[in-house]
Amino acid sequence: MRTLADGGVEVVFANAGTTEMHMVGAMDAVPNLRGVLTLFEGVATGAADGYARIAGKPAATMLHLGPGFAYGLTNLHNSRRANSPVVSIVGDHPTYHNVYDSPLTSDIAALGGWLRGSVRRPENAAGTGTDAAATLAAAVEPPGQVATVIVPADASWNDGGVVGTPAAGKPPQPVTQDVIARIADVLRSGEPTALIIGGPAVREAGLCAASRIGAATGARVLQELYSNRLEHGADLPTFPRLSFFPDQTIKQLAGVKHVITAGAKEPVAFFAYPDVPSCLVPEGAQSHALAETGQDAAAALVQLADLLAPDTSADVDTPQRPTMPSGPLTLKSWTEVVGALLPERAIIIDETVSSGTALPAATAGAPRHDVLMQCGGAMGDGLPLAVGAAVAAPDRPVVALVADGCAMYTLTALWTQAREQLNITNVILNNHAYGILRAEWGYFTRSPGPGDPNANPLFDLAHPTIDYVKLAQGFGIPASLATTAEELAEQFSRAIAEPGPHLIQAVIPTVT
Amino acid sequence: MRTLADGGVEVVFANAGTTEMHMVGAMDAVPNLRGVLTLFEGVATGAADGYARIAGKPAATMLHLGPGFAYGLTNLHNSRRANSPVVSIVGDHPTYHNVYDSPLTSDIAALGGWLRGSVRRPENAAGTGTDAAATLAAAVEPPGQVATVIVPADASWNDGGVVGTPAAGKPPQPVTQDVIARIADVLRSGEPTALIIGGPAVREAGLCAASRIGAATGARVLQELYSNRLEHGADLPTFPRLSFFPDQTIKQLAGVKHVITAGAKEPVAFFAYPDVPSCLVPEGAQSHALAETGQDAAAALVQLADLLAPDTSADVDTPQRPTMPSGPLTLKSWTEVVGALLPERAIIIDETVSSGTALPAATAGAPRHDVLMQCGGAMGDGLPLAVGAAVAAPDRPVVALVADGCAMYTLTALWTQAREQLNITNVILNNHAYGILRAEWGYFTRSPGPGDPNANPLFDLAHPTIDYVKLAQGFGIPASLATTAEELAEQFSRAIAEPGPHLIQAVIPTVT
Repeated sequence: MRTLADGGVEVVFANAGTTEMHMVGAMDAVPNLRGVLTLFEGVATGAADGYARIAGKPAATMLHLGPGFAYGLTNLHNSRRANSPVVSIVGDHPTYHNVYDSPLTSDIAALGGWLRGSVRRPENAAGTGTDAAATLAAAVEPPGQVATVIVPADASWNDGGVVGTPAAGKPPQPVTQDVIARIADVLRSGEPTALIIGGPAVREAGLCAASRIGAATGARVLQELYSNRLEHGADLPTFPRLSFFPDQTIKQLAGVKHVITAGAKEPVAFFAYPDVPSCLVPEGAQSHALAETGQDAAAALVQLADLLAPDTSADVDTPQRPTMPSGPLTLKSWTEVVGALLPERAIIIDETVSSGTALPAATAGAPRHDVLMQCGGAMGDGLPLAVGAAVAAPDRPVVALVADGCAMYTLTALWTQAREQLNITNVILNNHAYGILRAEWGYFTRSPGPGDPNANPLFDLAHPTIDYVKLAQGFGIPASLATTAEELAEQFSRAIAEPGPHLIQAVIPTVT
Repeated sequence: MRTLADGGVEVVFANAGTTEMHMVGAMDAVPNLRGVLTLFEGVATGAADGYARIAGKPAATMLHLGPGFAYGLTNLHNSRRANSPVVSIVGDHPTYHNVYDSPLTSDIAALGGWLRGSVRRPENAAGTGTDAAATLAAAVEPPGQVATVIVPADASWNDGGVVGTPAAGKPPQPVTQDVIARIADVLRSGEPTALIIGGPAVREAGLCAASRIGAATGARVLQELYSNRLEHGADLPTFPRLSFFPDQTIKQLAGVKHVITAGAKEPVAFFAYPDVPSCLVPEGAQSHALAETGQDAAAALVQLADLLAPDTSADVDTPQRPTMPSGPLTLKSWTEVVGALLPERAIIIDETVSSGTALPAATAGAPRHDVLMQCGGAMGDGLPLAVGAAVAAPDRPVVALVADGCAMYTLTALWTQAREQLNITNVILNNHAYGILRAEWGYFTRSPGPGDPNANPLFDLAHPTIDYVKLAQGFGIPASLATTAEELAEQFSRAIAEPGPHLIQAVIPTVT
């Protein structure tokens, strides 16, 4: 624990058990190490993700053997896709005990391996510090990863631990001048070009540079679908996001001869569909990586902009905010309320799925804010991301915009929000359905329709309806129901103004 | 889907997504296949476990790619340890799509492998029926396992599927006469012997045979700690359970020269502790397996009893029920209320952890009932087990006794209980703590005490307190708070008498 603290870890999101007892005890021997209890491992892991993204520092999770780790894996998958630096600490039985296959025994390393990050397991107390240091180094090496250290209980309880020496963090690798020159030539060619920015390139420096490049060369600038931390709002350029649906993305990229990526991956279909390509780079177009994951995409864009557009300035959003809407909430009006009232320095958690299409436009004129999205496609990251973001930045208002289906995977995040009295305004977008799945039914023309006896109910959240107000109150969070724009506006303003967490159940129509 | 239905699968506990769309659609083409929606995969998998145990039939789950499977893994671990036959269906991208590493892509087979069961992945539509049949056969082969079939979306949506032929179920392997004769000799030796029964041997036939053996030979009969389906109550013999704490188990087995297991594994410590052995067979004692997992332990016990105790009858509990207690609930009195009021043909789900020590004695005189325990040691199985048991036996009252910490992992099981209007009386044992972890603090004498700034809060559920009544109401379940035995009795009786689910928050003291 001291090794991790020396290396910059300040918070451990934990759901510990018997095998972690001595590590829990050790936390109290280390100054400045704060344990945050979660009631479900998926909350701990999602919170670590949110913390790492906002703090810009490694987060730690502490989970209980293979089964506890398994509960937390899904949001670690989301963390992995967000390139968040997370040290995943998993307690295990001693090796001599595992041979007896007691009930909680399992192959923990196999679960760690599923995350494609570093997996270590010290065999004794003497090795724990070294392995902790190596795990932390792996976690923070650009672009960031989930690195797992499996700690046998006897390595915890025996004497002889040696504090490890965390390696100094490495900066992201610079892009070579050759690559920048080659991409500049592509952009000068005059051929239709799309520039897709993502990862570290969707913050101020990268956004402004991309805007200048687009203005000077005519390149179509697009944002990746999901960003781990997007800077957004007034005084920043905004770009269209790639679509979730591949037929839309195909339209977005139609006619281009070159696709340049900076901090983003080549565009691929989120899901496969019959007769739809997986790779969405148009046929015949060339693909060029300005900056791969782990490279300094923002700096590369700035260099490219200075080369191509020395005299062009970025096209920024002027602070036009939506007019306050009225009447029953619509898919558009709820976003206008948020856009009109978003406070200074907010952090938006966007797990709106099918209900948030109008959000980027509605918030483009709001005061500058960060937007954290769930990057791995696995639902249930929103409420935990809010926990982590609020722990990392207690002085900033966190606005968690979470679709009703998503909120159900990790609902107990609300308890941790209440316990830690985090400044989070949770807005549950309540359309009583897995709206995205209803949309997918329409997409699959060869599928049966939604009137079928099994299929239709499996996308339905209306029978019975879920009362998110009562659920929030059950966890100690003040909550209210909004069905009109006026109600949402009043409740949102109040929630932002009062300290601690709040929840608003915003009833909206489903996509059709 | 037709292959599975032909092989006896009737219910699919599902949280499906885009990659499972065509399988969801296919369910509607197959008569008698019922989809049950859960809002979190851990509920689906725990429900499948409960269903399989009570129905004595294979259950199926349908989950969404690796991240959905990951959310469900923990309760599949519990299922694996319970030897429940579960067909785990996981949708995947087509193979041609996975090479593009879109956000939800992962190594699903690695997760399936973690469960140590069969893992198959048909490559095309033509192979799905065969793989479904093989997966089902693996799931139901005694003793039962979690068998996974990963179905690429194009294997679902392409034409050319061929219905597979499910193999006929195999009976458990009989124990040979040689083994029975050898164990009979041990029992006739007059040396102190413990007979540990578990798995299929803790139902009527095995319990009665074990009782006769104990009475005739003086062997000390003990039950394994966690049983997948224990028959209990009036007119059945009851035996002490092995302890969770190894020092207690060591006392239970002190002095024996032979340990005979029947359907149970050799006793091992649940957790390791400094200076405590992992294997709890006393030093110098011999260990003998009458029946290994997958063998017909109950039949072997009956044969053994007929050999050793032809004229001895089983020592059954007479229907003595507890006197109704009064006053504030205690760790004993809550169990007496349940024991006094348990209806005919009940199914008890026992996830009471540190709060249920008095339960077996209090229910020994109640009408005969089944008790399902969580066998893998991973918390959060209770509420989902109740869902599955109630779906399997809609005409039987299900009583879910769940510790407050456990309820938080899979809380949304309550919504599925409400949606399906299942006859479940949920009693949340609310001691505002991870009581078992407080107990473990005391066990580790080398650990720091509970006054520490991080350690103590990490076992505490009182700040803020959780209002389970509001939570249940939020999911559409009538709920009430009981702080006295009188209140619990009145509310329990009413909940049992009314159809559909109910929840009682029973406030009890924590173990100290």
